[in-house]
Amino acid sequence: MDITLLAKEITQRSSIEVSPKDVERLLGALRKARLPWDVVDLSDFPVPAVFESIRLLEEKGLLTVSENGFRLTQEGRTLAREVHPLEDLSCPACEGRGISLSRFSDIEKRFLRIQKGRPKPVRNFDQGYVTPKTTLFRFALAYERGDVVGKDIIILGDDDLMSIVLGLSGLPRKITVVEIDKRLTDFIQETAEKEGFQVRVETFDLRHPLPKEHVKAYDTFFTDPPETLKAADAFIGRGIAALRSTGSAGYFGFTRREASLSKWYELQKMLLKYRIVFTDIIHNFNEYVNWGYEEETKAWRLSPVKVKPKRNWYRSALYRFETLSGFKGNFKDYGDENIYEDIESSTT
Amino acid sequence: MDITLLAKEITQRSSIEVSPKDVERLLGALRKARLPWDVVDLSDFPVPAVFESIRLLEEKGLLTVSENGFRLTQEGRTLAREVHPLEDLSCPACEGRGISLSRFSDIEKRFLRIQKGRPKPVRNFDQGYVTPKTTLFRFALAYERGDVVGKDIIILGDDDLMSIVLGLSGLPRKITVVEIDKRLTDFIQETAEKEGFQVRVETFDLRHPLPKEHVKAYDTFFTDPPETLKAADAFIGRGIAALRSTGSAGYFGFTRREASLSKWYELQKMLLKYRIVFTDIIHNFNEYVNWGYEEETKAWRLSPVKVKPKRNWYRSALYRFETLSGFKGNFKDYGDENIYEDIESSTT
Repeated sequence: MDITLLAKEITQRSSIEVSPKDVERLLGALRKARLPWDVVDLSDFPVPAVFESIRLLEEKGLLTVSENGFRLTQEGRTLAREVHPLEDLSCPACEGRGISLSRFSDIEKRFLRIQKGRPKPVRNFDQGYVTPKTTLFRFALAYERGDVVGKDIIILGDDDLMSIVLGLSGLPRKITVVEIDKRLTDFIQETAEKEGFQVRVETFDLRHPLPKEHVKAYDTFFTDPPETLKAADAFIGRGIAALRSTGSAGYFGFTRREASLSKWYELQKMLLKYRIVFTDIIHNFNEYVNWGYEEETKAWRLSPVKVKPKRNWYRSALYRFETLSGFKGNFKDYGDENIYEDIESSTT
Repeated sequence: MDITLLAKEITQRSSIEVSPKDVERLLGALRKARLPWDVVDLSDFPVPAVFESIRLLEEKGLLTVSENGFRLTQEGRTLAREVHPLEDLSCPACEGRGISLSRFSDIEKRFLRIQKGRPKPVRNFDQGYVTPKTTLFRFALAYERGDVVGKDIIILGDDDLMSIVLGLSGLPRKITVVEIDKRLTDFIQETAEKEGFQVRVETFDLRHPLPKEHVKAYDTFFTDPPETLKAADAFIGRGIAALRSTGSAGYFGFTRREASLSKWYELQKMLLKYRIVFTDIIHNFNEYVNWGYEEETKAWRLSPVKVKPKRNWYRSALYRFETLSGFKGNFKDYGDENIYEDIESSTT
């Protein structure tokens, strides 16, 4: 069985570009895990293509599917043994993020307590949010890179509660949150009052251009866009529009679970056109909490086995970039277009 | 004193794009360090621009220069206190790389012993090499990403002795080294014989296109190009030409010490044209051993204080990318053009 040919067939059947390396990772994953969500996590390519691969491997007699999950056949195990054994070598201290939280143990303690009262995610806002540790690590990274102290910061969509960690630190000069969900803005504002920090909260739809007062008004932005190119262009492009000068910084998450490397490529080309430069791409930096409405998603419908995930399985890379002289944001109006779904997405 | 104006003046005088964020980092660095190389390390922008900044700060009365190094004046300290305090929050366990070496303690021990006998760097080959730990971490990262086991691997310029670590592991299917320095190729071949692994060593000049037999013949390549765009295009472009299929992987280092973020931007745009996609950019992954011929470099001539570096100060980010369908390498012939120097470089 030739892995390159398998990759080609999966690409054809799923219409998502899948490389031999992706198939190798999938085979490695199948030696370690049986449940669909764990296999997706380790395989690190789009859900619809992973499940299409499972079907193909089953047809070829390399794998069986039962209510207990996936199981390689004798032939499947022989093939899998030829490829790279999948092993997690990420640093246990920082979980692969390269950053230490120890400087912020007080903020950590307070935030871990506060976030317990947060509103749960709602499906129509695509609100998979990250673990509180992820938010804290993101804050520490931005602090180290010089994007927090004395800075004006805007957060475009704050289901990760970045504004609360920033507020607790007392370090930024100004914090603005743009968020469409009133339960979240209420929670952030109540927390700000209780903990005694300032945060300005606004509600608007990022499909429309940024209101003038926010254009070129910030040093740093954070966002975690839905994983389509259009949504990334809208959210990140608005973020760039909000930035003030050269050397301003943007942070966003982008996953492989709903984006092939072809989509990553288009994303990188698209963003470079704004005259920004990538300074960091940190693998699996963001870990998402299982959102509870799994059964309503496309991923669930596609899954060959209907079991709820037992552990967190959705991760994304953290991108950081800086602006260069002549940078420009995105002022296009998407109206009420559905920019949130494409062929590779599956969690809405 | 306005930091944005300072950044503009440094940009004009040095002809290297320097952002307010760069100047902020420099001011932060000056609160922590006095010696030129330590200040460059922490400031993380090109050496000629850092030293031009020092001159400007001196003219403005913000700083004094003596044989003991740089010292902020009262006014300088006031300005520096307004900006971000520079702090190293990188994870102490992995030194910010996000990867654990523990799986490879045997290879680590053997390599640390072997590399002690390595030839020292020679100036005319631009051979600043990384610490042995860096080479080991690079290996572990590539292993985890599935780019080592059973793979055909080519190393374009091997002053970092990657071939030896790969050989000791016994994991790749084939290892080829392209290296111009006979002392290094001899050392690698002697080591291979002694330790009982296979490595094929070839000598050719990467300014010329890759010999046919190496085109589309490898799964993975490593290189650490000189920090000009042309040299990066030549070295990395040859690496891409050597890769076999979609999902093949390339690794290279790129620093900020000799490259502004404008040059990073041009690099990223240039490489995307080959239809590769960046999967990882890991800050300060590569730490270089002080090369001993400091006094002969442009950096030394530019330095306001002539002292030899006491600790390692030269670092670079590690880039990883994968190829996409339709990817193409660089087959241009640069003849005997000097592709190794530009206005931002200073260590040759």
